[in-house]
Amino acid sequence: MSALTLADARRLIAAAEARANEIGQPENIAVVDHGGNLLAQVRMDGAWIGSIDISVNKAWTARAFDIATKDLAGNAQPGQPFFGIHTTNGGRVVIFAGGIPLLRDGKVIGGIGVSGGDDNQDQTVAEAGAAAL
Amino acid sequence: MSALTLADARRLIAAAEARANEIGQPENIAVVDHGGNLLAQVRMDGAWIGSIDISVNKAWTARAFDIATKDLAGNAQPGQPFFGIHTTNGGRVVIFAGGIPLLRDGKVIGGIGVSGGDDNQDQTVAEAGAAAL
Amino acid sequence: MSALTLADARRLIAAAEARANEIGQPENIAVVDHGGNLLAQVRMDGAWIGSIDISVNKAWTARAFDIATKDLAGNAQPGQPFFGIHTTNGGRVVIFAGGIPLLRDGKVIGGIGVSGGDDNQDQTVAEAGAAAL
Amino acid sequence: MSALTLADARRLIAAAEARANEIGQPENIAVVDHGGNLLAQVRMDGAWIGSIDISVNKAWTARAFDIATKDLAGNAQPGQPFFGIHTTNGGRVVIFAGGIPLLRDGKVIGGIGVSGGDDNQDQTVAEAGAAAL
Repeated sequence: MSALTLADARRLIAAAEARANEIGQPENIAVVDHGGNLLAQVRMDGAWIGSIDISVNKAWTARAFDIATKDLAGNAQPGQPFFGIHTTNGGRVVIFAGGIPLLRDGKVIGGIGVSGGDDNQDQTVAEAGAAAL
Repeated sequence: MSALTLADARRLIAAAEARANEIGQPENIAVVDHGGNLLAQVRMDGAWIGSIDISVNKAWTARAFDIATKDLAGNAQPGQPFFGIHTTNGGRVVIFAGGIPLLRDGKVIGGIGVSGGDDNQDQTVAEAGAAAL
Repeated sequence: MSALTLADARRLIAAAEARANEIGQPENIAVVDHGGNLLAQVRMDGAWIGSIDISVNKAWTARAFDIATKDLAGNAQPGQPFFGIHTTNGGRVVIFAGGIPLLRDGKVIGGIGVSGGDDNQDQTVAEAGAAAL
Repeated sequence: MSALTLADARRLIAAAEARANEIGQPENIAVVDHGGNLLAQVRMDGAWIGSIDISVNKAWTARAFDIATKDLAGNAQPGQPFFGIHTTNGGRVVIFAGGIPLLRDGKVIGGIGVSGGDDNQDQTVAEAGAAAL
């Protein structure tokens, strides 16, 4: 398995930024590697400062459970099997859209997280980033 | 963009206190600057000590997401797009009424947070403070 | 024992600010009550943002151990009886000058904490505040 | 005062990376804005994962106290005026070389933090980054 590089992370972030500019929504964008550790993060001018942490943790969550945070969301609602998971891991688990696992040859090798817009905006920007892998 | 000063923060706090006295509800009142960093905080005599932290974090939340915490509340309920946001950022995100972003010339330059009463009380006191900007 | 009021805290902060202006050093100034809980905090324009937390925790430390943080410092050095105390209490214990217990009728009723300058500056500003009790 | 932009942060990071490559030491590099909030972070391929956090916190420390972390180090040794400061602010204060405040027109507008090598390596890489402002 070839590991994610900083060059990979930058390519993904550039693609995500392009999409964010396209939809006119400044975003925080983060990429983590196979170990869930941060490779690169950017805050676009005007993006929320509260979303710095969320972007990093969406990327981490996507890798930590090898699942899109959007999909985890459904299982984490009250009454669902994983309700409460957002307070595990010292609060690093984010349960709303914008985090996507990164796959190469069918294996998860990292994650991308986007935060700064509404759920649909974060999701489309994260998808644009992931597609650049 | 001219930064918030301590004199600004005190003027807002005085206006908020006046409103708190008017409705007979002791409150904690905090003001943060553009970077989300605390400028001033007061606890009115008789106000809850559990609300010290909440007032500071409401002010921070309002600035961190450039939104009234009252409005964030709707999006943060179970089943809504931002459910779970209250456990991000190390627990600093508050999702009930009483935090308001502070705008000058159409730009967010800080936030005010009020905690100590019920949601309507905290909100009206925060609004009175914000109006003094 | 009559409790510290917000009016007391403001009088102390005003006296501390006057001294800070006199020596030309912007400071963070905080006052806590008998329970160690924050009554009021201000950050003078231009004061370090890293000192917000330290001012509050100096005030807390002074009340928590009924001792000036300057005096605690000596006992908290390597090889001394309380070495390591600065990492207890979740990191709230500050072991350098600028925190002073507040006494009324010989009883500790709170604490004042000042941070933003060097040790002598913080100490003289805290003393000016405490003297206004 | 004109705020740091993401473009600024990237220019500084590129200059720091160039210097890191020159000395053959992979580094983590982070830039924070005036409020101490992260603008961008990169981990060069092969750099320590334990240094992700340290790079961000060096940048924060340099801004929070408007001082190079290298200079803070001297004052933070046992027996010195600020011994213990490294455990304040929730452990965000870093007291060794590699963090430098960023100045424009004589005012601190942010900070850069570098972690991954020894103290001299981190310092020279941070200086190269800061010089690109």
